[in-house]
Amino acid sequence: MFDLKKIGKEAKAMARYVGRLTTGEKNIVLSACADALEANGSYIIEANQKDMANADPSRGAFNDRLMLNPQRVSGIAEGLRKVARLDDPVNEVLYMKTLPNDLQVGERRVPIGVVGMIYEARPNVTVDCFGLCFKSGNASILRGGSEALYSNMALVEVLQNTLDSLGHPRHVVQLITDPSREMARQFMGLNQYVDVLIPRGGAGLIKTTVENSTIPVIETGTGNCHIFVDESADLDKAIDIIINAKTQRPSVCNACEKLLVHKAIADIFLPRICKALDDSGVEIRGDERVCKAFSKAKPACEADWDTEFLDLIIGIKVVDSFDNAIAHISEYSSGHTEAILTESYTNAQRFVAEIDSAAVFVNASTRFTDGEEFGLGAEIGISTQKLHARGPMGLKSLTTTKFVAFGSGQIRA
Amino acid sequence: MFDLKKIGKEAKAMARYVGRLTTGEKNIVLSACADALEANGSYIIEANQKDMANADPSRGAFNDRLMLNPQRVSGIAEGLRKVARLDDPVNEVLYMKTLPNDLQVGERRVPIGVVGMIYEARPNVTVDCFGLCFKSGNASILRGGSEALYSNMALVEVLQNTLDSLGHPRHVVQLITDPSREMARQFMGLNQYVDVLIPRGGAGLIKTTVENSTIPVIETGTGNCHIFVDESADLDKAIDIIINAKTQRPSVCNACEKLLVHKAIADIFLPRICKALDDSGVEIRGDERVCKAFSKAKPACEADWDTEFLDLIIGIKVVDSFDNAIAHISEYSSGHTEAILTESYTNAQRFVAEIDSAAVFVNASTRFTDGEEFGLGAEIGISTQKLHARGPMGLKSLTTTKFVAFGSGQIRA
Repeated sequence: MFDLKKIGKEAKAMARYVGRLTTGEKNIVLSACADALEANGSYIIEANQKDMANADPSRGAFNDRLMLNPQRVSGIAEGLRKVARLDDPVNEVLYMKTLPNDLQVGERRVPIGVVGMIYEARPNVTVDCFGLCFKSGNASILRGGSEALYSNMALVEVLQNTLDSLGHPRHVVQLITDPSREMARQFMGLNQYVDVLIPRGGAGLIKTTVENSTIPVIETGTGNCHIFVDESADLDKAIDIIINAKTQRPSVCNACEKLLVHKAIADIFLPRICKALDDSGVEIRGDERVCKAFSKAKPACEADWDTEFLDLIIGIKVVDSFDNAIAHISEYSSGHTEAILTESYTNAQRFVAEIDSAAVFVNASTRFTDGEEFGLGAEIGISTQKLHARGPMGLKSLTTTKFVAFGSGQIRA
Repeated sequence: MFDLKKIGKEAKAMARYVGRLTTGEKNIVLSACADALEANGSYIIEANQKDMANADPSRGAFNDRLMLNPQRVSGIAEGLRKVARLDDPVNEVLYMKTLPNDLQVGERRVPIGVVGMIYEARPNVTVDCFGLCFKSGNASILRGGSEALYSNMALVEVLQNTLDSLGHPRHVVQLITDPSREMARQFMGLNQYVDVLIPRGGAGLIKTTVENSTIPVIETGTGNCHIFVDESADLDKAIDIIINAKTQRPSVCNACEKLLVHKAIADIFLPRICKALDDSGVEIRGDERVCKAFSKAKPACEADWDTEFLDLIIGIKVVDSFDNAIAHISEYSSGHTEAILTESYTNAQRFVAEIDSAAVFVNASTRFTDGEEFGLGAEIGISTQKLHARGPMGLKSLTTTKFVAFGSGQIRA
């Protein structure tokens, strides 16, 4: 029988082990794992073909994310090599100071311990998560979507064999191989052993995790991202930015989902942007004024303003003022990324101050909210909650700190 | 009827208001509140006397924490004045850099939004929490122990009247005046409106909150703190440190609860430290070797090693090695504060690296784990979890960050 508690206990013990590895030792493992994944490419792809054979053929995009081929296996391996090249955040001393009583106190960055990941049927996430958790000194417990079980088992086997061959314990990374929902629920209750649980995937997965987990959760990903075109915007740049934000990769969380247009420029701007979007194959769902300005626009329903389409669909609304734009975004945003397009210094400053999202942009595409783009290196997800980490989460998000004090006999008066 | 959802909605609106106040505006409110608390001292003390009249006379220490008198009201007011003097963390720019495409990206410190507090019957906590949440730009919802309801209502009334008199909305701080457990449970489910929930109090309160809250929780306070006397320790200093850590204020979370003594020095050190503790009125619960060395010691039971006594009681154990000390602490510690007393450089470094607690000390009393002592200013609690904040939580722990990017038309390639 599958023993989840045993997995938790082993992970806890492994956390102490990984936490003490040097940067050099960790990088050797990461490089060796990358080589081993490529060397075992056909074994991994064979396992993946079992998953593909079981897949529901009607789920095209889903199956595309599940599928592995030699190029994709190499891409996954290359991801580990990139992680090896990132700076190791562990043991960074944030500061050290001497108190009046000569006690030296500082804060040191340390691994979190055991990181749990729950995600959907994307085999590349298995290796990504291992790499980031391992480099940041954490043990990991992975629970991927059941549709990718054979792929994940093969990938984790290769990682564990590589650890073993280098003299490290295999259980530094563990996979939950019972794909039942009941086991996922039990995993969410493993707060005795797991320090943080990160769900990566759709809104349903994240909601279930938040509602059921007794482990602290970092919510990731939902992006109902807005662009507000202010009355003073440079309209040529605005068209480039909106087309980029909506169409460059519509299925990702930092794609633009909603466009707000200031009424003072609606008459000249709406026909232009609607035509440009339509030419790019984007379905427009607009309010009354938008539908009047562009006959191919469909009327938006209330639910559209709340929805992350993740597709070539955009909601467009005309707002009467800057304040109305702020109010609409505050009500409907998922707190991921919003942008203002404006030439007004005051409105740019106000937007940045008043919008309560993980990332706020002036005159740039929402697509830049990304760990690599921001220079944080590979990311484990984009946090849309406010605690611990917000926005793209790099290696530092997988660490915590501890206070360290060096004394010489100090007692408290 | 008491409308919790309304409280949540108002807090959410208030968060935007408080978040935009300047440091000067906030400090004026804090000073005025301090003055108003002192000016309304007799009104507050009268309300407190209603609580005291309802109190169970058998709960001595509990009632002492509940009781207010003019000195204590002044102390509470002085606390607000101290918070006014602290640096405002809001809008600090952590860094700002220019990406290769000339997009300027940085991280800015911002308030969390709505902070929920659940605590026991200590009226001073009501004002402390308001002050820290307000200074860090957050709206707060407070739920204090039912035994302090009249005191809390009077205190919050004075705070709200002061806000009102200065032209600010009253609901910047709100009190849950329905003291039922059912309402506390509902509060824990208010994740639509509350960004973080901080329980302050005993282990039971914290466990209930962690298990029931859908709001992200920061666990605070349980301190089963260990001191390990290594074989190379300076034994005179060790006695001073242990007596200080155990007896200077035994009811607080950073008091020493457990003592581990290296076997190499047990014969000479145990009689000395046991006598010193006994002379200070401390009850000793020891393992076999301790009981043999000091006849007044009582045999410890297994549960004692897990227990935070918060009283003049200490558990003492002889360990055979440094590694055994680490293993014992790793098994039984609550992750608050541990100290090693040693003259060995290697063991000091290893202890600091391997002990996974919020604070780790070398040759100093555990009593120093405290926001004021560490120079963080007043603290809202001591986090014993690893996410978001760890150890004493000052104003910065009540903030989050957001990414801000200033562009000039950048789109993603």
